[in-house]
Amino acid sequence: MKTAILGASGYAGGELIKLIDAHPEFDLVYMGAHSHAGGVLGDVHPHLPRRDRPLQPIGSELLQGVELCFLGLPHGASAHLGHGLAEAGVKVVDLGSDFRLDTPERYRTAYGGEHPLPGELGRWRYGLPELFSMAGADRVASPGCYPTAVLLAAAPLVKAGLMSSIGMVADCLSGVSGAGRALKEELLFGAIDEGVRAYGVTTHRHRPEIEMGLDKYVGGGHSITFTPHLVPMQRGILATVTGRASGVAGRYELLDALTAVYVDGPFVEVIDQPPQTRWVVGSNRALVTAYLDDRTDSVIAMCAIDNLLKGAAGQAVQAANLICGLDEGLSLPLAGWMP
Amino acid sequence: MKTAILGASGYAGGELIKLIDAHPEFDLVYMGAHSHAGGVLGDVHPHLPRRDRPLQPIGSELLQGVELCFLGLPHGASAHLGHGLAEAGVKVVDLGSDFRLDTPERYRTAYGGEHPLPGELGRWRYGLPELFSMAGADRVASPGCYPTAVLLAAAPLVKAGLMSSIGMVADCLSGVSGAGRALKEELLFGAIDEGVRAYGVTTHRHRPEIEMGLDKYVGGGHSITFTPHLVPMQRGILATVTGRASGVAGRYELLDALTAVYVDGPFVEVIDQPPQTRWVVGSNRALVTAYLDDRTDSVIAMCAIDNLLKGAAGQAVQAANLICGLDEGLSLPLAGWMP
Amino acid sequence: MKTAILGASGYAGGELIKLIDAHPEFDLVYMGAHSHAGGVLGDVHPHLPRRDRPLQPIGSELLQGVELCFLGLPHGASAHLGHGLAEAGVKVVDLGSDFRLDTPERYRTAYGGEHPLPGELGRWRYGLPELFSMAGADRVASPGCYPTAVLLAAAPLVKAGLMSSIGMVADCLSGVSGAGRALKEELLFGAIDEGVRAYGVTTHRHRPEIEMGLDKYVGGGHSITFTPHLVPMQRGILATVTGRASGVAGRYELLDALTAVYVDGPFVEVIDQPPQTRWVVGSNRALVTAYLDDRTDSVIAMCAIDNLLKGAAGQAVQAANLICGLDEGLSLPLAGWMP
Amino acid sequence: MKTAILGASGYAGGELIKLIDAHPEFDLVYMGAHSHAGGVLGDVHPHLPRRDRPLQPIGSELLQGVELCFLGLPHGASAHLGHGLAEAGVKVVDLGSDFRLDTPERYRTAYGGEHPLPGELGRWRYGLPELFSMAGADRVASPGCYPTAVLLAAAPLVKAGLMSSIGMVADCLSGVSGAGRALKEELLFGAIDEGVRAYGVTTHRHRPEIEMGLDKYVGGGHSITFTPHLVPMQRGILATVTGRASGVAGRYELLDALTAVYVDGPFVEVIDQPPQTRWVVGSNRALVTAYLDDRTDSVIAMCAIDNLLKGAAGQAVQAANLICGLDEGLSLPLAGWMP
Repeated sequence: MKTAILGASGYAGGELIKLIDAHPEFDLVYMGAHSHAGGVLGDVHPHLPRRDRPLQPIGSELLQGVELCFLGLPHGASAHLGHGLAEAGVKVVDLGSDFRLDTPERYRTAYGGEHPLPGELGRWRYGLPELFSMAGADRVASPGCYPTAVLLAAAPLVKAGLMSSIGMVADCLSGVSGAGRALKEELLFGAIDEGVRAYGVTTHRHRPEIEMGLDKYVGGGHSITFTPHLVPMQRGILATVTGRASGVAGRYELLDALTAVYVDGPFVEVIDQPPQTRWVVGSNRALVTAYLDDRTDSVIAMCAIDNLLKGAAGQAVQAANLICGLDEGLSLPLAGWMP
Repeated sequence: MKTAILGASGYAGGELIKLIDAHPEFDLVYMGAHSHAGGVLGDVHPHLPRRDRPLQPIGSELLQGVELCFLGLPHGASAHLGHGLAEAGVKVVDLGSDFRLDTPERYRTAYGGEHPLPGELGRWRYGLPELFSMAGADRVASPGCYPTAVLLAAAPLVKAGLMSSIGMVADCLSGVSGAGRALKEELLFGAIDEGVRAYGVTTHRHRPEIEMGLDKYVGGGHSITFTPHLVPMQRGILATVTGRASGVAGRYELLDALTAVYVDGPFVEVIDQPPQTRWVVGSNRALVTAYLDDRTDSVIAMCAIDNLLKGAAGQAVQAANLICGLDEGLSLPLAGWMP
Repeated sequence: MKTAILGASGYAGGELIKLIDAHPEFDLVYMGAHSHAGGVLGDVHPHLPRRDRPLQPIGSELLQGVELCFLGLPHGASAHLGHGLAEAGVKVVDLGSDFRLDTPERYRTAYGGEHPLPGELGRWRYGLPELFSMAGADRVASPGCYPTAVLLAAAPLVKAGLMSSIGMVADCLSGVSGAGRALKEELLFGAIDEGVRAYGVTTHRHRPEIEMGLDKYVGGGHSITFTPHLVPMQRGILATVTGRASGVAGRYELLDALTAVYVDGPFVEVIDQPPQTRWVVGSNRALVTAYLDDRTDSVIAMCAIDNLLKGAAGQAVQAANLICGLDEGLSLPLAGWMP
Repeated sequence: MKTAILGASGYAGGELIKLIDAHPEFDLVYMGAHSHAGGVLGDVHPHLPRRDRPLQPIGSELLQGVELCFLGLPHGASAHLGHGLAEAGVKVVDLGSDFRLDTPERYRTAYGGEHPLPGELGRWRYGLPELFSMAGADRVASPGCYPTAVLLAAAPLVKAGLMSSIGMVADCLSGVSGAGRALKEELLFGAIDEGVRAYGVTTHRHRPEIEMGLDKYVGGGHSITFTPHLVPMQRGILATVTGRASGVAGRYELLDALTAVYVDGPFVEVIDQPPQTRWVVGSNRALVTAYLDDRTDSVIAMCAIDNLLKGAAGQAVQAANLICGLDEGLSLPLAGWMP
């Protein structure tokens, strides 16, 4: 399938190029970029082979014959472009946030304005294949990195009635690549190395997305407290989600509920110890576990992923494989990098 | 005052040496160590001056004329030694965990056995001077690093009735020096760098200590969920504590309640943004803040400290200054290291 | 081909498993380990898939039907084992140091004793395929990580007569995985993070290997000064090699001499800027360059590699591909990890 | 003494503030900054106490009554300002590069243009007190970080005739704070973490400064090859300097020659093992050593310093102490930070 990436110069774009280069069915015919258009791949991704491949402009009219398109664009840049491509019959997987939320109200809460194409909201499949079917979809909104980790840890437990979402707290730790490649003082080595901090406290845009994911998967109206933290490493997200236990007989009831959901898929594994991001970084895998805290009658669920793979490019290719009728795991690494 | 350190070879011991070397009133006359006894300071702390100073054995009978003694020993090693010194009229500040808890029950919960001197429990002042008076004390149990951070963030809010401890979640991030200098595979650079993980989930010994601190400061019987995480940096703790809001009119009510407690002391500062560990590492300061999450009616309180200073050696010297009738801040750095 | 790895638990062993798992012709039928024998893969490499695969004992008699064997064992453990396997008709690639040197004298210089099988020295092909042919070999001694980087940077320039080896200085920087997984105090996070140091000054065992490589490739009797340094990162080696220029008209004469040697191979690329380890880590590639310093009439040649791939497991598989008559690049990644 | 810092917002400026705040004789009355003028200290140095102190504009006419002024300004910004202050009777220590070189020719080589006040070159004392007397100076050009480390390691050996500067190679490793706080893509965490690179190969401006230092200290016309490397840490410089040995009987002859120069001063210590930057970071100390490489008849000299203290602000205060007739070590830390 002739495949394009629009937004090839970011970190997720670089990962997409690697995955599609290795893909037996997807043929990368177009790499579009904004400010780097006219340059070559080596300008932005010196670690990738064939560095003289051209970076081209972004525009739907340029994608003659493309059958599959990945969008990795800043907030607001995908809406019209993605819609146009999808209407023209191209299968589209959008890694951005324009089509993730399901209602104009939710969009307004998260982004503080009106969606440019409110009728499209809800038409895009939320691309978290372990929790939502991709069957019949031709346009996919690939989830955010934090929602992926939080939902994989907590959604099956909430749905099974073992954990209440009331008062649920999701404290998440992310490597710095999650903040993108923008040139900001707060992302200098001298501002990140040897320190941690929370950010976006009470206001991060992934909170409404997590709540939507719970609503879709479980039903009802969920609200959670979400606090992301930046830690001095390049990759990886660890979500620690704590909530009230609800009639849980023992820890293994929690692990069983998780296993029941994930046992058949290739990427999510239930373990009985705290997951480490180092065990998954470089792969499309997720590790999940849960603990029962008798003393406070709480459940502590955890999930570790690589934010650029299972949290972005890997999950996008996973969804693309499915909507193209291919094996879900094509080109997606199971082995991580460590050390 | 003639001053001894027993347990000089650990990270906290090294910090104590630095602080006492710089202290105008404390004169360091004895440095005791277990396995390094017979060696010199440079063997264990090559970054300190006068590296040929001797490391001597540990034993109370050796401390002729010592008036003040800091203990930085492994769990279980302080009880008899500290008791003996205190009974002999030496002022003692114990950085270990033997005298922190207040009842045999609490000790049993945390350590799974009987305290060797149960009658001593409760006789040692819990050395967190911003929350508990040091007046009249001659023996001090210096708090753990996590309890220091969690209590500084949350205790004033709970006491003011603005935050409920029911369902309270304390997710904490620590640099690696908090785990000590032990030679363990999990502490190799290759096991820490570029990764995060939780540990001690539901079982960490600092949880009962946090609960005791709340009970002492607020009254009543508190229980919390506490999950510590290890992050790839040397120093610093960030505590993120989330709990139910209780009739909070606005965020500034939270900040005011914190300010009321801390405004007169030199070390804890209330700020209105997320505290970064880099802003305090190298100093004895703590930065605290709190947010009100309207959507879930929650309070998110945060505190950043240097785990080896305000979380260990610095706080111990602060308490020693107070019990010796000196200025609380003598020799304690207010400026951090950054970058 | 039925393939075994003996020494599967180290870092290079983990990389070998990944590469052979992905290899279309090599079938991994045996993973041997010393102290972890009897356990499973997940005990030592939690980042790899199928973690329940068994780790078996090390012993040549156990390898029924194995056609290709990789040895990743400590110094001294390969000699008899590798010899026995090779004599039994197994193709052997030894990642250790037992067969790298070519004469008993050189071995004595490097290791301070007699080689247990001196007659084998010189029978093993030195597995640096860009500089030495693998044709007809059935036993390969895979080079050390530092010699790989230094020789790729400097050997073509010395051979072309553009750089004198007299007074040549090789200062090299290595990530910590080069030191292996041993439990040593000097490899703790607390001893590595945020610091650099030289080690093995004048005595490192890779120096005689580098000199041998120059002798083999250029002829004559070379001697160099080699100083390795440890830097706080997991992977990567950067070699900076400085020597007297010898009638060099301009920098491009240096780049041309390098290009002439490497232009046809898939892995070594000549660039005209300082190579960064981040551009190659995760791949089997090497980046080389050279500068002419007019002011001192010196040549500065540089090479960046991933010490565990082009400096160990990747290069071993590259050699194995060649001695098995396969495409040199099978299963070897060209794309690096960054970020 | 009334003291000003012009250029208070950079990393070296922050260190100067800390040192002068702790100084018993220097009274910090003015902090000048360019783009941050009008703001407060906490905007740029959130780790320092009394964050509401004002940052004022830079201009010599504003410094009423100032007796001592430190300049920490970008290249080119000190010349007229420093000259004017010095002519007005203010003692000036310039941490920038405008007055370091001694001749217009050397300045042209390094900076590619004419010095605005060529008559001033040579009038400023080169502020490396261990090698050059500060007696009688009232204007000091504080050395660059790399020249400090290279000269401390090598200059005494060259002067003693034990090491030839012909063919001398200085390969240096620096933490990232050496590159300053500028907002550059190459200084993002994502571009620095987990990688190393050389930069400024053959062209770095510190090379002429090192050569001048050797000429001044030893006499004659020295030229060296200098290659700086950036490593993923905040602070510290390690210089590894290799040159021909000249009739050296044994290693201890080298150590003796170093000791003879440094034994009386408080800051430079000769050790007999490879110095680690972690042992000096946070202090004004330097550790030096030297090795004799019999095989190539070379000397390898090494020096570790904190680039912001002994390599910048600390050394500037050391020189200021001396030109003010004070104890050389006032306010300068001897203890490092580690861990």
